[in-house]
Amino acid sequence: MNRASVKKVVVIGGGTGNFVVLKGLKKYPLDLTAIVSMADDGGSTGILRDELGVLPPGDVRQCLVALSNSSRLMRSLMNYRFENGGLGGHSFGNLLLSALEKVTGSFEKAVEEAGKILYIRGKVIPVTTHQVRLKMVLNNRKVLEGEKEVYLSKEIDQGYKTIYLEPFPKVNPRVIEEIQTADLIVIGPGGLHTSLIPNLLVEGVCEAIAQSDAKKVYVVNLMNRKGQTTGYKTSNYLGELVRYMGKDLFDHILINVQKPAKELIDVYAEEGDLVENDLDDERVVKADLLGRLAQESKRDFLKRNLIRHDSKKLAEELIKIVDHL
Amino acid sequence: MNRASVKKVVVIGGGTGNFVVLKGLKKYPLDLTAIVSMADDGGSTGILRDELGVLPPGDVRQCLVALSNSSRLMRSLMNYRFENGGLGGHSFGNLLLSALEKVTGSFEKAVEEAGKILYIRGKVIPVTTHQVRLKMVLNNRKVLEGEKEVYLSKEIDQGYKTIYLEPFPKVNPRVIEEIQTADLIVIGPGGLHTSLIPNLLVEGVCEAIAQSDAKKVYVVNLMNRKGQTTGYKTSNYLGELVRYMGKDLFDHILINVQKPAKELIDVYAEEGDLVENDLDDERVVKADLLGRLAQESKRDFLKRNLIRHDSKKLAEELIKIVDHL
Repeated sequence: MNRASVKKVVVIGGGTGNFVVLKGLKKYPLDLTAIVSMADDGGSTGILRDELGVLPPGDVRQCLVALSNSSRLMRSLMNYRFENGGLGGHSFGNLLLSALEKVTGSFEKAVEEAGKILYIRGKVIPVTTHQVRLKMVLNNRKVLEGEKEVYLSKEIDQGYKTIYLEPFPKVNPRVIEEIQTADLIVIGPGGLHTSLIPNLLVEGVCEAIAQSDAKKVYVVNLMNRKGQTTGYKTSNYLGELVRYMGKDLFDHILINVQKPAKELIDVYAEEGDLVENDLDDERVVKADLLGRLAQESKRDFLKRNLIRHDSKKLAEELIKIVDHL
Repeated sequence: MNRASVKKVVVIGGGTGNFVVLKGLKKYPLDLTAIVSMADDGGSTGILRDELGVLPPGDVRQCLVALSNSSRLMRSLMNYRFENGGLGGHSFGNLLLSALEKVTGSFEKAVEEAGKILYIRGKVIPVTTHQVRLKMVLNNRKVLEGEKEVYLSKEIDQGYKTIYLEPFPKVNPRVIEEIQTADLIVIGPGGLHTSLIPNLLVEGVCEAIAQSDAKKVYVVNLMNRKGQTTGYKTSNYLGELVRYMGKDLFDHILINVQKPAKELIDVYAEEGDLVENDLDDERVVKADLLGRLAQESKRDFLKRNLIRHDSKKLAEELIKIVDHL
């Protein structure tokens, strides 16, 4: 395959959702870019932001690991979490990114150097290089401050007035360039208010998506999150994104139709239920997208977050779209 | 130069002394091995030992950086120390070694993997892979527990009864192999009681040195440490090493004769004085070995530890010895 025929795919999100998409697409001859939300402020990432004043490394780390062609050991190292003492809870990859930011004086340079260490395929680009906080004003006027608070809130499904980043950040110019030259833009899966929308809240991102000739795909989440997206159907997810994009720009909407093992659904009932599909236009692509563990019901596996997309199946569906470009 | 003519040089010590020797020798076509004391328990290293139960990474890190052929950025990263919060005081390289130890389940494997990441020339081998503490019984029966306590003590020059590692550790078998096949063994410079002797206290190390056909060089320290080696002359340093080796095994004793700037000596008077030479046999090699900063008297440079060996000059003298092998 010669250079001219290599398609450029830009994946927008952050966290585990991005990880699954990137891990699957990495196997194909694509020009891959991950654009990552900078709103994370929970856990290890939150502590590093507060104590060291660095930009949030967690989501970037996950994307780097997803795109890494280094040894399994290096990938395990990046995700290794210290268990005790002052280091307790920090993942090594977060510390690498934070130390690199301190040594190079730039988060973007840090991401680039970490990418070299991990032999990544493709690029990982923070959506902004400014320190921002995610804020959400609920219908009851309560203000949720920070992504962690939004993530943990159980009242968002009661409605919210607005969600924004403070201060209103300038976009990383490389993000605009990537979006403008993309052949395919993939948004999702991922936390609607905590991973996807925070990218759309950055100045210029929605405009760039609208102006890009790329085909746009939305990969809908598998599960609702109780208190956040309780009872949401696919049209509700789409509607929330369109609210920020100003217009429904999607060419394809990728929806899982495979059912997880019943025992898993029961166990997850406390967390949330399956997203039902109520969309029925020509853009909807229905496919079996569940990860292996979501189909099993062994008690050993009944931990959180097992109902996930399968990176291989997801990539196969996305590649079908790429092949038609 | 063909393989058969490449000489094997084994450097025994730990910390800054080893760093200077290795950094200088790295430039030459040698088969280089650093054997590193595992007694360190101060600072970042001590916290990691206590909180995570890992082996002490600090001295190994310094040797890895000395032998590294990676970018200046990577070397800066390894020595970068976090400044705030729960991470405050930890050097990134120490965290890398500790996380690798946790992920691989072995400190030696961790050192090997870190060596790959840093593209090191040569090998870095811990003298033992058992957890040990350095202990010293003073003449007044007070027991100093741990390398840090020994390092900070101001009463060692009043004499001590004994110094030992607890529990008495088995040597790392690779150390014996390296010593047996060495052409040159370099001991020092470095903390006499805290870096050099702790290697000699490990079971089998002194016997292996005695049995090795390698030429043995002792590089004498530049400065005495007040309260530790106050008023020591070169014969006192040599005598202390011989006490543990059982016999004077040295073929060459490398002594600096260059004088630091007078202002520096004055500033350092609180820390200790210059080591005077009182040895006068055919083994003594006198040379100008001072680092550049030790010859200057600019007020800006009047910090601790500026009176150091110059890695280039030191290597040149050692290479003269290698060339005569």
